[in-house]
Amino acid sequence: MLPKNAFRNSQKSSGLADLFSLSDQANTISFSGGYPDAALFPKKELQKAFQKRLTTAAPDLFQYRSVLGDLNLRQKLANYAQSLQIECSTEQIMFTQGGQQAIKLLASLFLNAGDGLAVEGPTYVGAIAAFNEYQPTYYEIPMEADGMNLDVLEEQLQTNQIKLIYTIPNFQNPTGYCMSIAKRKRLAQLAADYNALVIEDDPYRELRYAGQAMPPIKAFDKTGNVALIGSFSKILSPALRTGWVIAKRSIINDLANLRLAFDCQSPNVVLEAIDQYLTDNSLTDHIQQLRRSYQQKLATMLACLQKYLPDECHFSKPQGGFFVWVTLPAGLDAQKLLQLSKKVTFLPGSSMFVNSHEENHLRLNFTGVSLDEIQYGCQELGNLMRTALLTVQN
Amino acid sequence: MLPKNAFRNSQKSSGLADLFSLSDQANTISFSGGYPDAALFPKKELQKAFQKRLTTAAPDLFQYRSVLGDLNLRQKLANYAQSLQIECSTEQIMFTQGGQQAIKLLASLFLNAGDGLAVEGPTYVGAIAAFNEYQPTYYEIPMEADGMNLDVLEEQLQTNQIKLIYTIPNFQNPTGYCMSIAKRKRLAQLAADYNALVIEDDPYRELRYAGQAMPPIKAFDKTGNVALIGSFSKILSPALRTGWVIAKRSIINDLANLRLAFDCQSPNVVLEAIDQYLTDNSLTDHIQQLRRSYQQKLATMLACLQKYLPDECHFSKPQGGFFVWVTLPAGLDAQKLLQLSKKVTFLPGSSMFVNSHEENHLRLNFTGVSLDEIQYGCQELGNLMRTALLTVQN
Repeated sequence: MLPKNAFRNSQKSSGLADLFSLSDQANTISFSGGYPDAALFPKKELQKAFQKRLTTAAPDLFQYRSVLGDLNLRQKLANYAQSLQIECSTEQIMFTQGGQQAIKLLASLFLNAGDGLAVEGPTYVGAIAAFNEYQPTYYEIPMEADGMNLDVLEEQLQTNQIKLIYTIPNFQNPTGYCMSIAKRKRLAQLAADYNALVIEDDPYRELRYAGQAMPPIKAFDKTGNVALIGSFSKILSPALRTGWVIAKRSIINDLANLRLAFDCQSPNVVLEAIDQYLTDNSLTDHIQQLRRSYQQKLATMLACLQKYLPDECHFSKPQGGFFVWVTLPAGLDAQKLLQLSKKVTFLPGSSMFVNSHEENHLRLNFTGVSLDEIQYGCQELGNLMRTALLTVQN
Repeated sequence: MLPKNAFRNSQKSSGLADLFSLSDQANTISFSGGYPDAALFPKKELQKAFQKRLTTAAPDLFQYRSVLGDLNLRQKLANYAQSLQIECSTEQIMFTQGGQQAIKLLASLFLNAGDGLAVEGPTYVGAIAAFNEYQPTYYEIPMEADGMNLDVLEEQLQTNQIKLIYTIPNFQNPTGYCMSIAKRKRLAQLAADYNALVIEDDPYRELRYAGQAMPPIKAFDKTGNVALIGSFSKILSPALRTGWVIAKRSIINDLANLRLAFDCQSPNVVLEAIDQYLTDNSLTDHIQQLRRSYQQKLATMLACLQKYLPDECHFSKPQGGFFVWVTLPAGLDAQKLLQLSKKVTFLPGSSMFVNSHEENHLRLNFTGVSLDEIQYGCQELGNLMRTALLTVQN
C-alpha cells in the first residue's frame, strides 16, 4: 500500500484540472480554456530569435545561472515597468515559470496555515489551486463592475489579520471587469495601512480592445506592499512558461531563495530567446495584431450572447482580456447545464468562489475559438439555457 | 510594513543559497558547486536540435499542452526505463523542471506537517530545502559506504509512522557512496512492508567511471512503492531544467494535478529540442566523453587529497558522480575552515544532516573545475587543514 496523500490533497481533482480536460474534448466547441489563438503566435520571429541566440550565446548558456533570470531581459522589463510609473531596478525582478509560479512562490513565502488571504469572489481558479496548499483562511470580497468591493475589504482588514490580498485588476479572470483608478489608489493605501501585501496579477493588461489603460496598483505603492505579477503567456506564447514578479528587493531575495528549492531557475535558452525576440521585433506591433483579432472575437461573442441568450441571463461586457462572465437566473446550476451540454463546453463558476460557491455563473473564453465557433457555440448555449429554464419553470 | 514571512521562512538563507553564492565567488577555486564542466556541453548538437525542431514542429509548439510533457520524449524515456528492468508506460512519466521540482512535488503530495520522512545522513541540501516547507518529522539514517543503514531504518519504520524515504543510491550527494544491490532489494521490500514511498533520486546513474552499474531500486519494486527521479542536468545541460519522475500511474496523476498549480507544464520547445537531440545523436557517446573527462578529474582529486591532506583527514573514494566527501578529525569545524579559506571554497557538511549536524565534514566537487584547479585547490586545502590542526593541538 502507498502512504496516504497529505490531507489537503485528498480530493481527487482541482478546478484547474477540469479546465484543461474540458478544453481538450474532441468534437465540442470549447469556451472553457484560457488559450490564446494559436494562429497568432509569432512563430517565425520566435524561431529566428531562438536560432540567433543559440548561435551567438555566451558559453554559459547551458550552465546553471542566476535564479532571477537573464539580466538583459530583466533590464527590458524594468524599462517597461518604469514606463508604467513603477520604480523598478533589475534586482526587483525575478522571472518565473509563468505567472502561475509567481503566485505559488508568494503564497509559499507568506502563508502559514490559517493565515488570512483576501480574494475576489469570483477569482482565478488556478490561483485558488496554488493557495489551497497553504490552507489559508479565505476572505471572499465581492467583485463589482469597477473591481473588488473595498468597503467590504476594509471591514475585513479591520477585524481580521489579513496578510495577502490577491487581485486581477485588468479584465479579471473570470468576470472581465477592470478595477477603477480610484480603487487602485485606495487598495495600495489599504495594504500599507494594514501591513498586507497586494498580489497584483496582471496577465491581460496589454490586451485592451477599447477604452483607456489604467496605471497598475503597483504604481501607487510607496511602501513596497504590492507585488506585481505579469506574463508573456497571453501576449507571446504560454508554452514559453515565462512570467515575472516585480516587488520590493527584500521580497525578491526571499522568493529567489525559495525558488532554488522549487526548481532552481528558468531555462536560460528560453529567457535569452525572448530577449532576442524583443530586440529584433516590436512586441507592441504584435500585440496590436492580437488586439485586432481578439476585439473582433469579443464583439462577435457579445453580439451572439445578446441575440441567442434568453433575456433572463446576463453577461459582462469587458473591454479586453480573455473572458465573458454569464449569470443565469438564480436556481439554475451551471454545472448541471454543462452536464447536459453535448456540443459546447464552458467553465461553471462555482469553483471560482472560495466561500460562497455561487452556482449560477459560467465563464466563456473567446480568444481560443474561431468566429464561426463563437457563433455556433453561443447559439447552442442559448438553446441549452432555454431548455433548462423551461424545466425549472415547469 | 510588510506582512511577516511564514514561520518556516523566518531564517534568512538556506544551504542551497549558500551553495550557489559560494560557487560564484571570483578569484577562488570553487569545489562548492554541483556544476558540470561547461566545456563539455554538446552545444552545437543542442543548437541544431533546437533549430531543427523549431522549424519542423507542429503548430501547437507554442500553445499550452500536456502537463506530463512531450509524448515522444516520454516514449524514449520509457524505453530507457525498460532497459533498466523497470516496467514503465508513457503514462507513468512526468517531466519536471529539473529533478528538483520532482522532489518538491512528491513532498507536496504526501507530507502533512509532522509526517515522518527518512533521509540519509548526510543528504542533498536541495532536497532538505524542498522538504523543509512541509515541516516533516525527520529521521536521519546513517550513511554507510554501501548505502544507508537499513537496520536503523527498519527500527525507525517499526516504531514510527514514516511516509517517505529519500535516497540517492548512486554516487550519493554528498558522500559519493553507492547503495549495494542487496540493500536496494531490501529497501524496496521495506517500503512495501511498511506502506512507505521510496523517493529514489538518481541524477548520477550514468556517470560511473569504474565498476559495474547496479539496477535501480525501482527495478525491485513490485508494489508501486518507489518513485524514481532522473534528470538531464548532469548528463546534458542543467540550464534545460529538465528532469522526470517515474512512478505508479495514480501517483503521476496526482502529481500532474498538483503541477498545474505550481507552473502548469514544462516549456514545449525545450522538451521537443531534447527529443530531437536524442533522435539525431547518441547520448551514450556523449556520456562516454563525460566519463573520460570526469574520471580523470576524479583520479586527480583523489591523488591530490592523498598527497596533500594531513593523515588525520579521511575522504571517500567514489567510482562516479560529482563529489568527494572529506572527514576532518573530530573537533575541527568545516564551517570555520571555510571562513579561514581565501583561495578555495567548499561546502561544509553540517547543513547536510537534518538532525545531527556533524561539523567535521566537507563536500568537494571535482567536475566543475579544471585539473590545475584541482591540483592547486587540494594543496591549499591541505595547508588550511594543517594550520587548523596545529591550532587545535596547541
